[in-house]
Amino acid sequence: MQHDDNKPDFCDSLTWNEQGLIPAIAQDYRSGRVLMVAWMNREALRLSVAEGRAVYWSRSRTKLWRKGEESGNVQKLHEIRVDCDQDVLLLQVEQIGGAACHTGRESCFFSRLDGDRWVAVDNVLQDPDTLYGRSP
Amino acid sequence: MQHDDNKPDFCDSLTWNEQGLIPAIAQDYRSGRVLMVAWMNREALRLSVAEGRAVYWSRSRTKLWRKGEESGNVQKLHEIRVDCDQDVLLLQVEQIGGAACHTGRESCFFSRLDGDRWVAVDNVLQDPDTLYGRSP
Repeated sequence: MQHDDNKPDFCDSLTWNEQGLIPAIAQDYRSGRVLMVAWMNREALRLSVAEGRAVYWSRSRTKLWRKGEESGNVQKLHEIRVDCDQDVLLLQVEQIGGAACHTGRESCFFSRLDGDRWVAVDNVLQDPDTLYGRSP
Repeated sequence: MQHDDNKPDFCDSLTWNEQGLIPAIAQDYRSGRVLMVAWMNREALRLSVAEGRAVYWSRSRTKLWRKGEESGNVQKLHEIRVDCDQDVLLLQVEQIGGAACHTGRESCFFSRLDGDRWVAVDNVLQDPDTLYGRSP
């Protein structure tokens, strides 16, 4: 999507970090389950709005990441909110495929503090090798 | 609380940023509403666990911030989770007083993207001046 950066838009009031990024929390719009946190740059946010699906900025791959482009587990966008400091986004999404996490779990937040250690407490719903088309 | 930093603990497996901080999402443990995002250092996280309430690190005041210390709107801690990258925490909390936001709203995420602008869509539940004991 082309965008004239001289034209004011809803990105201007947001607080972007020194890398030009803002964190986005994805929450299941029905269950309220917090699924994951990822990053967006201006282009990712504009594309998310324009395409009605979550598009992030992958810091490790340094490129746009249309969530589900590989796995099919697209996040359909229902709503975007911003917090009072304008530095965190909250997305209400419909998680296609049921698994947001690369481990094949519903949520990336599958480890719970139990006493003094973190314990994985959620089931794997989808085999990550199948999810990403890898050979066993 | 004293802590021997040479003793391994649940903080060691977390990914702390270059300032020694990790972001923490506070979610209402009953409704699932995402209330706010703040930061913790190791001491804040240990104190949160030890005291059963959310303790953050205030980046603006550069000191520990026991949520509710001024307003009374304490966040009782029900659960802590971490994501698959170990770089974001998710707290399930009971928000005493009903308002997590300094504006007196339930959630800091009270602004929704409506077309090309952000619109405050949630009601103020508590007068912030009363909340923080300020004169009108």
